[in-house]
Amino acid sequence: MKLSGIIGYPITPFSDKGQIELNKLSDMIDILLTAKVDAIAALGSAGEAAYLSDEEWKAVAQHTVKHLAGKVPVIIGIAELTTENAVHKAQYAHQIGADAIMLSPFSYYKLSEREIFQHYRTVAEASPLPIMIYNNPATCGVDMSPEFMLRMVTDIPTATMIKESTGDIQRMHKIHALSGGNIPFYNGCNHLALEAINAGASGWCTAAPCLIGQKPKHLFDALKQGKSEQGAALFYEMYEFLEFIVSSGLSAAVKSGLALQGHNMGSPRKPLLPLTEGQQNRLQTMLTKLV
Amino acid sequence: MKLSGIIGYPITPFSDKGQIELNKLSDMIDILLTAKVDAIAALGSAGEAAYLSDEEWKAVAQHTVKHLAGKVPVIIGIAELTTENAVHKAQYAHQIGADAIMLSPFSYYKLSEREIFQHYRTVAEASPLPIMIYNNPATCGVDMSPEFMLRMVTDIPTATMIKESTGDIQRMHKIHALSGGNIPFYNGCNHLALEAINAGASGWCTAAPCLIGQKPKHLFDALKQGKSEQGAALFYEMYEFLEFIVSSGLSAAVKSGLALQGHNMGSPRKPLLPLTEGQQNRLQTMLTKLV
Amino acid sequence: MKLSGIIGYPITPFSDKGQIELNKLSDMIDILLTAKVDAIAALGSAGEAAYLSDEEWKAVAQHTVKHLAGKVPVIIGIAELTTENAVHKAQYAHQIGADAIMLSPFSYYKLSEREIFQHYRTVAEASPLPIMIYNNPATCGVDMSPEFMLRMVTDIPTATMIKESTGDIQRMHKIHALSGGNIPFYNGCNHLALEAINAGASGWCTAAPCLIGQKPKHLFDALKQGKSEQGAALFYEMYEFLEFIVSSGLSAAVKSGLALQGHNMGSPRKPLLPLTEGQQNRLQTMLTKLV
Amino acid sequence: MKLSGIIGYPITPFSDKGQIELNKLSDMIDILLTAKVDAIAALGSAGEAAYLSDEEWKAVAQHTVKHLAGKVPVIIGIAELTTENAVHKAQYAHQIGADAIMLSPFSYYKLSEREIFQHYRTVAEASPLPIMIYNNPATCGVDMSPEFMLRMVTDIPTATMIKESTGDIQRMHKIHALSGGNIPFYNGCNHLALEAINAGASGWCTAAPCLIGQKPKHLFDALKQGKSEQGAALFYEMYEFLEFIVSSGLSAAVKSGLALQGHNMGSPRKPLLPLTEGQQNRLQTMLTKLV
Repeated sequence: MKLSGIIGYPITPFSDKGQIELNKLSDMIDILLTAKVDAIAALGSAGEAAYLSDEEWKAVAQHTVKHLAGKVPVIIGIAELTTENAVHKAQYAHQIGADAIMLSPFSYYKLSEREIFQHYRTVAEASPLPIMIYNNPATCGVDMSPEFMLRMVTDIPTATMIKESTGDIQRMHKIHALSGGNIPFYNGCNHLALEAINAGASGWCTAAPCLIGQKPKHLFDALKQGKSEQGAALFYEMYEFLEFIVSSGLSAAVKSGLALQGHNMGSPRKPLLPLTEGQQNRLQTMLTKLV
Repeated sequence: MKLSGIIGYPITPFSDKGQIELNKLSDMIDILLTAKVDAIAALGSAGEAAYLSDEEWKAVAQHTVKHLAGKVPVIIGIAELTTENAVHKAQYAHQIGADAIMLSPFSYYKLSEREIFQHYRTVAEASPLPIMIYNNPATCGVDMSPEFMLRMVTDIPTATMIKESTGDIQRMHKIHALSGGNIPFYNGCNHLALEAINAGASGWCTAAPCLIGQKPKHLFDALKQGKSEQGAALFYEMYEFLEFIVSSGLSAAVKSGLALQGHNMGSPRKPLLPLTEGQQNRLQTMLTKLV
Repeated sequence: MKLSGIIGYPITPFSDKGQIELNKLSDMIDILLTAKVDAIAALGSAGEAAYLSDEEWKAVAQHTVKHLAGKVPVIIGIAELTTENAVHKAQYAHQIGADAIMLSPFSYYKLSEREIFQHYRTVAEASPLPIMIYNNPATCGVDMSPEFMLRMVTDIPTATMIKESTGDIQRMHKIHALSGGNIPFYNGCNHLALEAINAGASGWCTAAPCLIGQKPKHLFDALKQGKSEQGAALFYEMYEFLEFIVSSGLSAAVKSGLALQGHNMGSPRKPLLPLTEGQQNRLQTMLTKLV
Repeated sequence: MKLSGIIGYPITPFSDKGQIELNKLSDMIDILLTAKVDAIAALGSAGEAAYLSDEEWKAVAQHTVKHLAGKVPVIIGIAELTTENAVHKAQYAHQIGADAIMLSPFSYYKLSEREIFQHYRTVAEASPLPIMIYNNPATCGVDMSPEFMLRMVTDIPTATMIKESTGDIQRMHKIHALSGGNIPFYNGCNHLALEAINAGASGWCTAAPCLIGQKPKHLFDALKQGKSEQGAALFYEMYEFLEFIVSSGLSAAVKSGLALQGHNMGSPRKPLLPLTEGQQNRLQTMLTKLV
């Protein structure tokens, strides 16, 4: 499997009572397909995976794979506090036919590299799926250096991809330079998309297509085709929006935006709150310009 | 209830297969009682609460209250990603007869003050137990200012205590100064104990008595009785040890130390690892001097 | 004046006894002209301006303007602790015929925006030269936000350009987005060159041409001409070198590199030290590949 | 020489035209003597040393030593960008009869430990005066670890004291623990005074006695005499004030406070600005309570 392009994040739709609504999840996935995403990453930050019970998590994973039915590859996000739970979920992802897992080391106690390495290796030994090493210290509480992640790529056969979400472009330069450009890396920071793609990122993992359709795909394609001026213009057109959905909370922002567009996918799970009215108005103004 | 003095953290004993061993938990609690702790805080960081299933968590909470049988007050730590789970645990803590809860806002998405406040208020409305607001950004991923925590104390009737674990003594000065010395605060940072108590902390939450007996209690009493020179000497005697158990991971360090003292309480749950041999040797040297 | 392209930093040559050598400064400037720089920025970090006496500073400024004789524009760096000294230097720069000044707020006490604004306005009122607002918190000890710098551009008529050296590409996106692309900004962080130019930077201020000739100019031109793939390839070719000269100290690195290339320009002024032997060997290896 | 107790910082009085007024400097020093300071540290942050010309610096140093005439020891602060200038000032301090120098590594380029060590050793070889190693990264732009400073104490015979101004009490615990309590250390962070003295600091370097008389001395004495409750009460009485003069800029705050008390010592040198009216009102309220 060679992942590239736009990797779309679906949110997880809830009913007013907070129950997962699988039929609306189908709608969500169809919106992403219409936005021409090249793959789907289920159960990431946008999907509120951290706030789901194990049963809910499995239902979302299974439904996503089933609904997509191979139209584009599916990556399943796994961010568990215990290695045992990560193993179970990696096995489940394989069992239901997912294409890869996106594995990050969620932490309560800060983890050492020794502990993180063991976590990845144990998961890798339990499931044959390709692993995208996912570094997102802002949500997961632990940071992995480019050097360390590349060592895992070398030492763990199925760890073949890296996703970087620190927002520091130097990390990507390091990954590219140290690997001789041979290890595919992915951008997980929306407002870093321009430089990440220019720096050689194979893909951009983003929830933006949930709200603004094919624009992220157009940006990716323009830059990969050498249309750098057009790419920069597209990026600046989206810039305020991209920064907004990150700084106001991806799940809350996307769910509010979907509601503004007529898709009621519910509120994020508490303690997360929907956008304030002021934020919703700002988002409405941005969407009006972009869509 | 007026909590003061040494609030001891038990670790959670596991068998070689990773199962909780309640009889050893009794031993653990007895070790703390022998160390003259003034209260027990179950299911904190040292207790690996974040790594337990709901059933395990309940078993530990219940057994702790039952085994203590009122000898000293029991505080139950609650650090949940969802408000719903926090509510369930707060209700359970009340149901089994715990004396208070120690509530911290565990986060995946960074939480706003609006979200944190709502989390605390919802839990407070669901359980009559007194709440110790617990700020520990290093493990919980979200920081609360003294001003914000004091606002919660004012607005939420059962939120009556504050535990500060940032390691920044200025936070305690702020709490003391802004509240006119009227809100009890507790220290959760072992190597800050000397200044925290001198700054007016009502108590010190610590796992140190698991390994070094009554020394923490002696330090607390010396300082509260105005024996500042003796207190400082006791603190410096323990200083390297206090810093070590924090920097090497509280649960791993205490479990290794207990093993060195003949109490096999198992290893921390993966991905957490036991101390390395080098760290164990260093700990042995420190314990030999202190015990 | 519309500055664009590569703005080269000369170092300040010293004799073995630590005296400035103006004839070698001419050689240094000629090296930069051969490297096809579009302008010269004298007395920046690379020029060790902070370590020169007032007389030395003036001698370097005057000699640079005179030797260039209008071949390319000259910008004079000014980073003074007192406003009075900054005013004197700005007046001197005008008097000798420099084209612009690059003004940064060097600090001992942290400065408020109120203090920084007054500093810039006072200098602007004392000298008619265009001002490049220069933000470099790592050396100058004070950080200026994009919003604040743009406010100064609006309120101070001669403040027309911004140079950003934090290394955070988001600052440049903010400047571009908030100004509608109308305020020229310049990159002062070598290993950020690829994304800075792609983000719309008008120029790249760099000492790299002192050692690697026209390569930085080729990178700039390739990217501005839409040859993004060639640009990225050039950037990665230089990447390790660009990062090395920043992390090992610009002045020390460039002077060591010049010595390796047969130009003895002396050592940096103490407490600054020349590169260690190990660093020199690393630099030699990089230069062999690049030149 | 064994320095201990309150080490008072005089500010540097300026006329309305910005000239140094030596007769008012005498008044300033007399105010500190009336406040029972145990030593005077001239030309520190409060003295705006960084903003003086060499001639002004020398005039202040000489006048301070002369006016004090041995009543209490004088320490002269030296924070120079070049080693050569630091050497000259250290020699001058010795020549005029100062008792010690307080040496910090002011930086433009970040300095390595190799560079800082060489700086200290060169100064030590040029002047026989005892050296207080002074760590203040917030103003000087470079941080020195306890371990590194203790290594300099070991390797440089005249480097016998350490002053810590990071505001992190753990640094003092480290210095005390690693040196077995044998190296005198001093607190330079006003709102850390309570814990610094309790942690074993030999002295407290402060400008507070310029405005609030003997209160700092009373705090120091109370804590050293084991009256910890009285000491804590005194500290909290001063706490808001101590934090205010640091956060609003020591020199600006003290000069404004002196003016409120009838001593016109002028304004800080630009770009530094006097307190705003709102800040002055706040300071007046605090002084009314304290004096």
